[in-house]
Amino acid sequence: MPRVFPADSVGLVKPQTMQIEQPLQLACGQQMDGYRLVYETYGRLNADKTNAVLVCHALSGHHHAAGYHSDDPREKPGWWEACIGPGKPLDTRRFYVVVPNNIGGCHGSSGPNTRNPATGRYWGPDFPPLRFRDWVQSQRQLADRLGIDCWAAIVGGSLGGMQAMRWALEYPERLRHAVVIASAMALTPLNIAFNALARQAITADPAFCGGRYLDQGGARPDVGLALARMTAQVTYLSDSAFAQRFGRALRQGSFARGQVSELQFEVESYLDYKGKQFSADFDANSYLLILRMLDFFDLAREYDDDPVAAFSHALCKFLVISFSSDWRFLPERSREITRALIAAGRDVSHLEIATDRGHDAFLLPLPRYIDAFAAYMRNVGDEISQ
Amino acid sequence: MPRVFPADSVGLVKPQTMQIEQPLQLACGQQMDGYRLVYETYGRLNADKTNAVLVCHALSGHHHAAGYHSDDPREKPGWWEACIGPGKPLDTRRFYVVVPNNIGGCHGSSGPNTRNPATGRYWGPDFPPLRFRDWVQSQRQLADRLGIDCWAAIVGGSLGGMQAMRWALEYPERLRHAVVIASAMALTPLNIAFNALARQAITADPAFCGGRYLDQGGARPDVGLALARMTAQVTYLSDSAFAQRFGRALRQGSFARGQVSELQFEVESYLDYKGKQFSADFDANSYLLILRMLDFFDLAREYDDDPVAAFSHALCKFLVISFSSDWRFLPERSREITRALIAAGRDVSHLEIATDRGHDAFLLPLPRYIDAFAAYMRNVGDEISQ
Repeated sequence: MPRVFPADSVGLVKPQTMQIEQPLQLACGQQMDGYRLVYETYGRLNADKTNAVLVCHALSGHHHAAGYHSDDPREKPGWWEACIGPGKPLDTRRFYVVVPNNIGGCHGSSGPNTRNPATGRYWGPDFPPLRFRDWVQSQRQLADRLGIDCWAAIVGGSLGGMQAMRWALEYPERLRHAVVIASAMALTPLNIAFNALARQAITADPAFCGGRYLDQGGARPDVGLALARMTAQVTYLSDSAFAQRFGRALRQGSFARGQVSELQFEVESYLDYKGKQFSADFDANSYLLILRMLDFFDLAREYDDDPVAAFSHALCKFLVISFSSDWRFLPERSREITRALIAAGRDVSHLEIATDRGHDAFLLPLPRYIDAFAAYMRNVGDEISQ
Repeated sequence: MPRVFPADSVGLVKPQTMQIEQPLQLACGQQMDGYRLVYETYGRLNADKTNAVLVCHALSGHHHAAGYHSDDPREKPGWWEACIGPGKPLDTRRFYVVVPNNIGGCHGSSGPNTRNPATGRYWGPDFPPLRFRDWVQSQRQLADRLGIDCWAAIVGGSLGGMQAMRWALEYPERLRHAVVIASAMALTPLNIAFNALARQAITADPAFCGGRYLDQGGARPDVGLALARMTAQVTYLSDSAFAQRFGRALRQGSFARGQVSELQFEVESYLDYKGKQFSADFDANSYLLILRMLDFFDLAREYDDDPVAAFSHALCKFLVISFSSDWRFLPERSREITRALIAAGRDVSHLEIATDRGHDAFLLPLPRYIDAFAAYMRNVGDEISQ
């Protein structure tokens, strides 16, 4: 019997692949002669091609944002099932939602774990260093091929939000709305510090081999990558979310016996699980590449470090959403975006959601968040219909 | 020409060693037949032996808390030079200050990097798992040998404060004041998570060899230990302290050239330096042992998880100090201590210092902190003189 999917899910979906032969001139000066993009789409593109929404994924994300790939009842849906589907904020009855896996990633698009056509070897650490504008350019080339001149909205959480902002400056006439969730115009030194820890964890793993582990066909730096992910994971929840979820409960051992070495706390077990799960799914070179992109990203750098000057190039309207307990990208980072947009005379709404779920809140079906996001997107949809 | 030390420094000091042959019955059930304590003292014990102050060190601390070990002008003073010396809060003109290196540590007292007398081999990972009460008991045996029946005060920051609180419950009649700075009654799950990261970093280092690296005489797990320390280091400063101190400044490379792979941020360089400095000075097995002690520590566990019941056993007066931007041990942790002490009918003062210097503030000569701490200690001194 085939699986019955929830009524508000896009159901069974299939990734698509586009080989783009047009050269991609990268910000670093190098050129890719061609590249592959894997992407998923949900909903239908209307005749005017005005109802397309681009979703930009975050650090560990990819093209599979909603729905299911199989009938297997154990399979979990895509990473943004909370927000994409019939009746959800990105309502697939109205919008044509496009989610590419970014280049440099590791889920099918050209990246360090794919082969360099010029040499036949894995790109590995030689994959060109990317910047956000490279991602945006590749997404623009995808839009061209899908016949989308102007996105109804470009939407993203965390580094997805950074892509949405970069789009608004690079191709201002090609989007009507940018939705920037739990994001920032640049990393703080504390953010960079956490990235440095992750980098060290990966490169110190003897299996890393200077990034050549795929060529060598042996072990992958799973231990280092797991530790890198664990380090990030502690920043995705808030202190109180950790406390509520795990407290000081033990997974293994007992305080009564006083045998310190036998102890394992629930929170340790959780991090360990998250780390292992991630290292099974992600490529270490991709992770390093994207961490560096994040460190480098600074929306206003080329605008004399003036975010107001930067946003004065934008034409779209903005929705900025932050979460009160997010300490990876503090609500203050979103307020900075909002203040700069206001000073630049842009149309912006800022919504701060009170929650103790930390940075990860942007992935969760929190009613106030979903309702407000949905209300905004209904207006976006109404504009199209007029 | 001999070095001239600052007038408010204790100047040239020398560590002392005490071999304690009395058995130490540990909380884990094991017994140490004898052990060595290295310690320093500053000031003079008065005839009544009533002016002694015990300073309990924190995770990376040791017995060398004040003054200098040599005439070398490049040598830095002990770790709490800000608070110990003539005219300072722990005024060595009035107090006899005793600072032992805790057992399980790695600066001369019995610990994993010393030899087990029974086998002649390094203790390494076989050093008995300790708890805070074992530290307190060994410090009590030191007090007995120094003829100190009752400490004028027991003082400590971070896990030093945990020792001071444990003393107040274990030997209530043997201290008149406890000064608990930037501390907590138990780690939160977020604290435990950070410790788990550090543990993974150390044990994943191939040089760790299950903790037997000293026996094998080869490489030590310096890379893992450095990463562990870097992970802790990010929690010692606040977001704004990082921002003020480092911003997004580059140590190496340039944004202009867009060569992402060449970049090194100042904050990365700082963490890298701190990690390497620490791994040259500290023993990985000691670090693991003390992290587990921290995880395990829960002041009220044996008092039905009721801190009020716990503190009702204390007899001394308390000074509790916290720092507004400390996110390792939030000010709320100190407020919890204070509330429990008040409910238990104890005499307590709580001082919250507004600063952006984070957890590390307890080591720094911040005027409001130093002045308030000194004022409290003047009263402690006046009690002795009466």
